[in-house]
Amino acid sequence: MINVGIVGATGYAGEELIEILLKHPNARITNISAKIDAPKAISDIFPKFKGKINLICKEPDVKEIAANCDLVFLALPHTVSMEIAPKLLKAGKQVIDLSADYRLKNTKIYEKFYHAKHKDKLHLAESVYGLPELYRAKIKTAKLIANPGCYPTVSILALAPLVAIDKIDLGSIIIDAKSGVTGAGRKIAESFLFSEINEDFKAYKVNVHQHSPEINQELSKLAGRKINVTFVPHLLPINRGILATVYAKKGHKVTRSVRKPPRRGQGHKLIELYKKFYKTEPFVRIKEEGNFPRIKDVVMTNFCDIGIKDDGDKIIIVAAIDNLLKGASGQAVQNMNIMHGFPENTALR
Amino acid sequence: MINVGIVGATGYAGEELIEILLKHPNARITNISAKIDAPKAISDIFPKFKGKINLICKEPDVKEIAANCDLVFLALPHTVSMEIAPKLLKAGKQVIDLSADYRLKNTKIYEKFYHAKHKDKLHLAESVYGLPELYRAKIKTAKLIANPGCYPTVSILALAPLVAIDKIDLGSIIIDAKSGVTGAGRKIAESFLFSEINEDFKAYKVNVHQHSPEINQELSKLAGRKINVTFVPHLLPINRGILATVYAKKGHKVTRSVRKPPRRGQGHKLIELYKKFYKTEPFVRIKEEGNFPRIKDVVMTNFCDIGIKDDGDKIIIVAAIDNLLKGASGQAVQNMNIMHGFPENTALR
Amino acid sequence: MINVGIVGATGYAGEELIEILLKHPNARITNISAKIDAPKAISDIFPKFKGKINLICKEPDVKEIAANCDLVFLALPHTVSMEIAPKLLKAGKQVIDLSADYRLKNTKIYEKFYHAKHKDKLHLAESVYGLPELYRAKIKTAKLIANPGCYPTVSILALAPLVAIDKIDLGSIIIDAKSGVTGAGRKIAESFLFSEINEDFKAYKVNVHQHSPEINQELSKLAGRKINVTFVPHLLPINRGILATVYAKKGHKVTRSVRKPPRRGQGHKLIELYKKFYKTEPFVRIKEEGNFPRIKDVVMTNFCDIGIKDDGDKIIIVAAIDNLLKGASGQAVQNMNIMHGFPENTALR
Amino acid sequence: MINVGIVGATGYAGEELIEILLKHPNARITNISAKIDAPKAISDIFPKFKGKINLICKEPDVKEIAANCDLVFLALPHTVSMEIAPKLLKAGKQVIDLSADYRLKNTKIYEKFYHAKHKDKLHLAESVYGLPELYRAKIKTAKLIANPGCYPTVSILALAPLVAIDKIDLGSIIIDAKSGVTGAGRKIAESFLFSEINEDFKAYKVNVHQHSPEINQELSKLAGRKINVTFVPHLLPINRGILATVYAKKGHKVTRSVRKPPRRGQGHKLIELYKKFYKTEPFVRIKEEGNFPRIKDVVMTNFCDIGIKDDGDKIIIVAAIDNLLKGASGQAVQNMNIMHGFPENTALR
Repeated sequence: MINVGIVGATGYAGEELIEILLKHPNARITNISAKIDAPKAISDIFPKFKGKINLICKEPDVKEIAANCDLVFLALPHTVSMEIAPKLLKAGKQVIDLSADYRLKNTKIYEKFYHAKHKDKLHLAESVYGLPELYRAKIKTAKLIANPGCYPTVSILALAPLVAIDKIDLGSIIIDAKSGVTGAGRKIAESFLFSEINEDFKAYKVNVHQHSPEINQELSKLAGRKINVTFVPHLLPINRGILATVYAKKGHKVTRSVRKPPRRGQGHKLIELYKKFYKTEPFVRIKEEGNFPRIKDVVMTNFCDIGIKDDGDKIIIVAAIDNLLKGASGQAVQNMNIMHGFPENTALR
Repeated sequence: MINVGIVGATGYAGEELIEILLKHPNARITNISAKIDAPKAISDIFPKFKGKINLICKEPDVKEIAANCDLVFLALPHTVSMEIAPKLLKAGKQVIDLSADYRLKNTKIYEKFYHAKHKDKLHLAESVYGLPELYRAKIKTAKLIANPGCYPTVSILALAPLVAIDKIDLGSIIIDAKSGVTGAGRKIAESFLFSEINEDFKAYKVNVHQHSPEINQELSKLAGRKINVTFVPHLLPINRGILATVYAKKGHKVTRSVRKPPRRGQGHKLIELYKKFYKTEPFVRIKEEGNFPRIKDVVMTNFCDIGIKDDGDKIIIVAAIDNLLKGASGQAVQNMNIMHGFPENTALR
Repeated sequence: MINVGIVGATGYAGEELIEILLKHPNARITNISAKIDAPKAISDIFPKFKGKINLICKEPDVKEIAANCDLVFLALPHTVSMEIAPKLLKAGKQVIDLSADYRLKNTKIYEKFYHAKHKDKLHLAESVYGLPELYRAKIKTAKLIANPGCYPTVSILALAPLVAIDKIDLGSIIIDAKSGVTGAGRKIAESFLFSEINEDFKAYKVNVHQHSPEINQELSKLAGRKINVTFVPHLLPINRGILATVYAKKGHKVTRSVRKPPRRGQGHKLIELYKKFYKTEPFVRIKEEGNFPRIKDVVMTNFCDIGIKDDGDKIIIVAAIDNLLKGASGQAVQNMNIMHGFPENTALR
Repeated sequence: MINVGIVGATGYAGEELIEILLKHPNARITNISAKIDAPKAISDIFPKFKGKINLICKEPDVKEIAANCDLVFLALPHTVSMEIAPKLLKAGKQVIDLSADYRLKNTKIYEKFYHAKHKDKLHLAESVYGLPELYRAKIKTAKLIANPGCYPTVSILALAPLVAIDKIDLGSIIIDAKSGVTGAGRKIAESFLFSEINEDFKAYKVNVHQHSPEINQELSKLAGRKINVTFVPHLLPINRGILATVYAKKGHKVTRSVRKPPRRGQGHKLIELYKKFYKTEPFVRIKEEGNFPRIKDVVMTNFCDIGIKDDGDKIIIVAAIDNLLKGASGQAVQNMNIMHGFPENTALR
């Protein structure tokens, strides 16, 4: 049994962490904090937790957190995490940071996309990118996890098998992603009002979204070559879930044989490739030929569903996750499970 | 052709006024203003108006408005209207106020429900409550219209025929109302975020809503006796529309004969009563026996649909309107049409 | 560990039963059946169950079910349940029936509202109405549970404390209920198409809904007197959840002292009454004064949240449940837990 | 004043045609028909039309239609249109067909995608593809209009300027399209139930949609070369609207100069190209640099909004329409206006 703290408990990711950890047989929430006007019972902030948890949510007090917790989840806005993480790490605590602060190894790129100086290069160098499908071994012994962004999680999982073995033209990758509203956090702004979003749909930050460099960093590392994807996010009028439709031209290895329409079974080969790549993964499900994911099937789960179409000289991949689970808090708990040797799907059904 | 101004053009009611007036053959929008950081083309604020209107929206300037307009719509928050209306009236302009400032004749009640002193009792005394179905004659010659609230419009229209001729126990009236989100205006608050409202439903201001006294004032006037309804509003996860389900016990006049289950045709009698009461009304439609309104049928129209069920010793009335049209801007233009002798449904299809 | 079967697994209630039972440490799903064209893996029918359950769903075969299961959930349309239940009971199996077939003790009323003859009066006489808050003792030893309807669950829980101790005018009860779409089951009809329901809201079966007699039966039993409520259901454009707003006039016991506006603390007294009545209930939560339930707080839980307002000579109660959990499958599993002596909230978090 | 008939009036496109034509000062609806069990007032089928139109909807009777109408809209499923159109054309009537029957000039492709033999090759040869932005001159004198599909309308308008002047690599076009639910018509199937679509999102008919060949036919004609786009449609949980995000690699003409990141003003040049191409079009609006369309701005209008991003060696175009207006009935009336010399935006505000 470990004691865990949640800093930033009033946002969507924090709320979801509470939800998950309340079901975890090996973890006990011992500290809950957030930027807040006055201390308040967390079950008054979220009445749905009435009768399930009795903690008071107050402003984060690093000493108290360090005294009460073995591991701390930071569900904070970027720039705020890197104020708190170093102190907790110094106190010997494990930290799983859900912000962007420890994801981008290149601080110039961080500064360009997040409009702030990076203040903790020391720990940035040690942080492990918390995508278990790629970094499980490192996660096991990590002290500081940079929990991946929601768009990068679904995008990297959709592309990793093809990029890793050089099946595609790396300059041709297009990611057309669609996210539910909780992806943006509990942001109080006109553009997130119900009547602005309901019955609407739009693209935003067209190829300038701050998750682009995160996707590029990880895919480049996989490929061993610099990759620049085209990434266009869109806002869906639903609460949860991301679906990404990914397009790429086949590279030489693949296309030598298949410049013509795919022969029977061709699709199958790509699907086999994915199945093999994710063979032992508890949270990646590959769809059979002709089937594609839908958000409904992954919402409220930690799964990433992936469907692949071999389409002549192009490959189309559709992938879906719950942005608050596999795209944030679920993956954070998956990382905690790995760090502590708990069965990886504990509390993640 | 008259020249009209819209003050408060950036809210939902203001936006809707522009939409309607652009189709009006006898009115021309000549001034658009709102609380705004810097002057901005209204078609930049609402891109959907691109190519349809070229005015610049700026802070309201009463002199300029008075110089350009014959009639002014105030789509402002309460307390702001009573700052501007007196000046426009003094300049000889007609004013249709969509706020609550000139609706409640009793300023003590106004002050209790709106938490502000009333500052224009002079014009309050002259204002005409702009519900054409009850006050058409007075509206014709009015200088200042207090355009009714959305809940009062649907509630009063649902009850007027029964209250006017004393068919019901006046102490038994219950109004269970459900409104789409635009009813609250373009309010930037956590409780109006998409992910707070989507897939949710709740009661709010349970029998303490500020529209209660407005309903009570008008029904009491109709009955010639003090009425206190029970009024519980609820928030629907849709953009537009209000549906009110109204319950009342039959009064002596009705119940003498029908203390038992309704005989065949009984329902019919009540329906006939409503049809007769609203016989010449262009915007009230009475449903046949066994049929009830739905929001879909009135949204984007200025209609109020009403269905009536005779249910033993009770009467159940269901009524629906579009809160932004018959419940606000549509009714405002209906009032303008009446004041200027235009066909009452001009621009209201 | 008990073996359970689900008949009617492809409907919403069946799907939800699988979801819950997969998390149950003391129950194992051993048989899944439904009206179906050809046998099909349940994880092909519901891709979200991929990797979680491997059973094939086929047409129900009573012998096979009896051979494999200790307890059987019937998630079937009315009239179909009473074909299968007798055979399973004869084979010595426990049956929890989610249809209406064993709820109404008066078969004439059943026949009037469900337009079908009752064919199993024998077992109807022994069936226990599965509302644990009222019938826990009987449920413990029952062989056949008539699992309550969704509207009756929320309505009866909202009214039981007042009705049981005669605080209200029993002729004055009005239940204005609003339900999400899954309440109607997976019915393929024009009126349940997305574009018919989205952005709409309406009343339906105005005081003629088949759940009325069920509510009346149970409240009458509680009161020891015949009660006829006014019950108007409405259709909400959301997937899950019911919220009921209930109105009643105070009866003599209460009103002697409080015919005037409630004194401070009055509301408190009613709230205390509810808290006391439901003191030991694991799934009923009473809101503090001035607070009312919202669907968001109960969805995906087995809770019923209740808020009470003392309003002069009237009482207003607002109650909410998840129609598929406390209103159907969650309550069914709660009943199973009681029957088998498992902790009552097992698998119901 | 012309007399028009609507065949297939009970579908979404038919309903919308009535809505528009009721506002048309030069057209009178004189005949309404549909596949229907028994004749029924159209205002009973659509209660929102109560008090606006009095016609009875019955099974189509070609003789009667020919006797009453100058022009007939066919809002029918494919294969049904080509049964009726020839008879009306023979009777000298103008026909605007909203189905796919007269769109694809190559009947082999029609038969492949619509799984039916083409039965009216005679009129197919004469039909004019009703996209005014490309074929206005031919529409003026046409007898038979093949009104474009919704996806093709938005896709072709998004790409026409680039394809027409050979700015892009024609083999690189990807159209990632997202449509509201009415795009599929009033189809009664499980997959269109509210609770299946609400809070979900998915791709469907991945690069095998029947609108692909229509897009290919028209773009190929424009380019003077065979084009095969990659087209992936998705289903949005909203009633109306389509947004397409289109990707293409720059071709030699463009890329010679701009293989590097776009210089300032580069975006501008593409935007100027679009503005010039659509200069005199009443229903195409080009967004300024950095701005992109949203569905909200075009819903309930006949506009197509287009935003363009110059992105290094790629171009990203986002375009949006209301699928029932510019994507169906609005465009059909636009075509009627052109055929009869009415101002092109009559009744289309």
